[in-house]
Amino acid sequence: MGTLKGMSMEWTGDTLILIDQRYIPVEELYVECKTFEEAAVGIKDMIVRGAPAIGATAGFGYTLGSFQFETLTKKDYMDKMKEVKEVLAATRPTAVNLFWALDRMEKKMNDVIKNNDLKEVSKILEKEALLIAEEDIKINKEMGKNGAELLKDGDTVLTHCNAGALATVDYGTALGVIRAAIESGKNIKVYADETRPYLQGARLTVWELMQDNIDTTLISDNMAGWVMKQGKINAVIVGADRIAANGDTANKIGTYSVSILAKKHGIPMYIAAPLSTIDLNTPTGEEIPIEERSHNEVRFCHKSKMVLDNVKVFNPAFDVTPNELITAIITEKGVVKPPFKENLRKLFED
Amino acid sequence: MGTLKGMSMEWTGDTLILIDQRYIPVEELYVECKTFEEAAVGIKDMIVRGAPAIGATAGFGYTLGSFQFETLTKKDYMDKMKEVKEVLAATRPTAVNLFWALDRMEKKMNDVIKNNDLKEVSKILEKEALLIAEEDIKINKEMGKNGAELLKDGDTVLTHCNAGALATVDYGTALGVIRAAIESGKNIKVYADETRPYLQGARLTVWELMQDNIDTTLISDNMAGWVMKQGKINAVIVGADRIAANGDTANKIGTYSVSILAKKHGIPMYIAAPLSTIDLNTPTGEEIPIEERSHNEVRFCHKSKMVLDNVKVFNPAFDVTPNELITAIITEKGVVKPPFKENLRKLFED
Repeated sequence: MGTLKGMSMEWTGDTLILIDQRYIPVEELYVECKTFEEAAVGIKDMIVRGAPAIGATAGFGYTLGSFQFETLTKKDYMDKMKEVKEVLAATRPTAVNLFWALDRMEKKMNDVIKNNDLKEVSKILEKEALLIAEEDIKINKEMGKNGAELLKDGDTVLTHCNAGALATVDYGTALGVIRAAIESGKNIKVYADETRPYLQGARLTVWELMQDNIDTTLISDNMAGWVMKQGKINAVIVGADRIAANGDTANKIGTYSVSILAKKHGIPMYIAAPLSTIDLNTPTGEEIPIEERSHNEVRFCHKSKMVLDNVKVFNPAFDVTPNELITAIITEKGVVKPPFKENLRKLFED
Repeated sequence: MGTLKGMSMEWTGDTLILIDQRYIPVEELYVECKTFEEAAVGIKDMIVRGAPAIGATAGFGYTLGSFQFETLTKKDYMDKMKEVKEVLAATRPTAVNLFWALDRMEKKMNDVIKNNDLKEVSKILEKEALLIAEEDIKINKEMGKNGAELLKDGDTVLTHCNAGALATVDYGTALGVIRAAIESGKNIKVYADETRPYLQGARLTVWELMQDNIDTTLISDNMAGWVMKQGKINAVIVGADRIAANGDTANKIGTYSVSILAKKHGIPMYIAAPLSTIDLNTPTGEEIPIEERSHNEVRFCHKSKMVLDNVKVFNPAFDVTPNELITAIITEKGVVKPPFKENLRKLFED
């Protein structure tokens, strides 16, 4: 029985505890998941969010499912685990880490089920889920080191949404790069887009950076262009929910606009993401499914209803930044520059 | 004693009644101004906002000041009216219509004070303020007709902030163009940016367009680029708080970003504004003062506090769109195209 504790989640050996990201920073609440169904709700309801954190949660969720069904026959267990995977996979469509983690867990289960009893299988799956989570932290630190090279002492970075410790198991992707640059002795400041409608930038990024005493200024999303115009920004760094084989990147809605604004102002646009976010099976951004979420997310501003119920809304949760607007993709295996189609493939060949 | 009633304000003969735009659409409240100080608070606290509406409010505020001091000696009256002008002028720095209206009122006062007693002067000033307000509605309808020519049947227009009936005395500038196009028989749909931090788009534009049964979809500001990418937008039309002599346009924060996104997607970017918003004394956008407003506007989302009190914020209320990103400026005297420096000046020469 292993345990693990990161900023976004804790594994106690039989329970996954998620910090409830819907209430940060006003309240610090925790949600306990003891079944795969509870882990699925955790992802679907955005108690946990961020592509790598969703992947790790799916790994533990699959493990919880195995705990639930380990007393069945192997045949019934296999049927149930198929359902476990389906329920977890149906929670959110865009972040590919979810499917990546579930495929990895299922493959492990298939590899070991013949030669082990089911209690043994559960233990092996728990170990695999822990490995995914531990690797995530390790990967983020490597990514951070690689990306830190791109920042100069005194730089100010604009980030959008939250690609931080809360979006991963710990340390973060985009915010991991900022942390690593600061740890290497550079003075780095941050502007955080608030990131409507869900306000991950305002609520999560500002909260976690302030905990690390990183100088952070909150702006509304529509101020990003004006802040760039005034020369306040040296680099943009964001995370990713899925990177297609050609480098097109799905990320939180608004990233596409930020990438156009960065290009216009000659500011480099960096994506920080682990290899598990790169989906070579998706040729271009065109094929990435974009989740549309509840219209009430837009009708409400945080907890305050600002418009009437019958107001028509469009609420795409993500957009796709085309590869030509991306300066480089920061991964745990190095900084990838164009041509992305060729260079992303190489990452997996090594 | 004259009266006038528009969507944003009503003049009863001795009182200015403002619809309280801070509470629309959740509550429909009205504020009575019986003194110039109350009118100044109305502008400063954004009970009324929008450059033309601010100008008209200043006209009535100046008149209220005259009513307050018409029993003094002419010398004391003149001193007091100087103070009235100063107090009203100090409310907000960016919208030039405020200073334009105050200069016009002061000039009228100076023209007539010699040959009239002060009660007579007050009546003349009331008439002038009513004229400003009535002209505003007339000008908006002319602007609407001129701008409507730029829209095709079936077009969808993106607008930012509220340049509608609520931003003027009635009918609106940018939304006036949309109204006029629809009145001319064209089918026009609207996407409204919510316009953080003050949410004029979500709260005011959506509310007033829905009252006219105009098909309106609310989006977060950071969705504008993605909506354009999907081919949903045929034109952008916004208002202005001040247009410099070279066409550089100060408008609600976020307009600059929208103009870059429009350019990138080959979508025309139109500014709709009356001549009173064009300031030939301001050579370029560089010289337009940009108001920075309370940081709590960004810390709060509508009425809901989403971040902690000590979060650092930048909150510029306006930005400047450079003339090269503007396709045309729609005025009551016609549609002005580049070169703006030359063509804007011509408007005033005719």
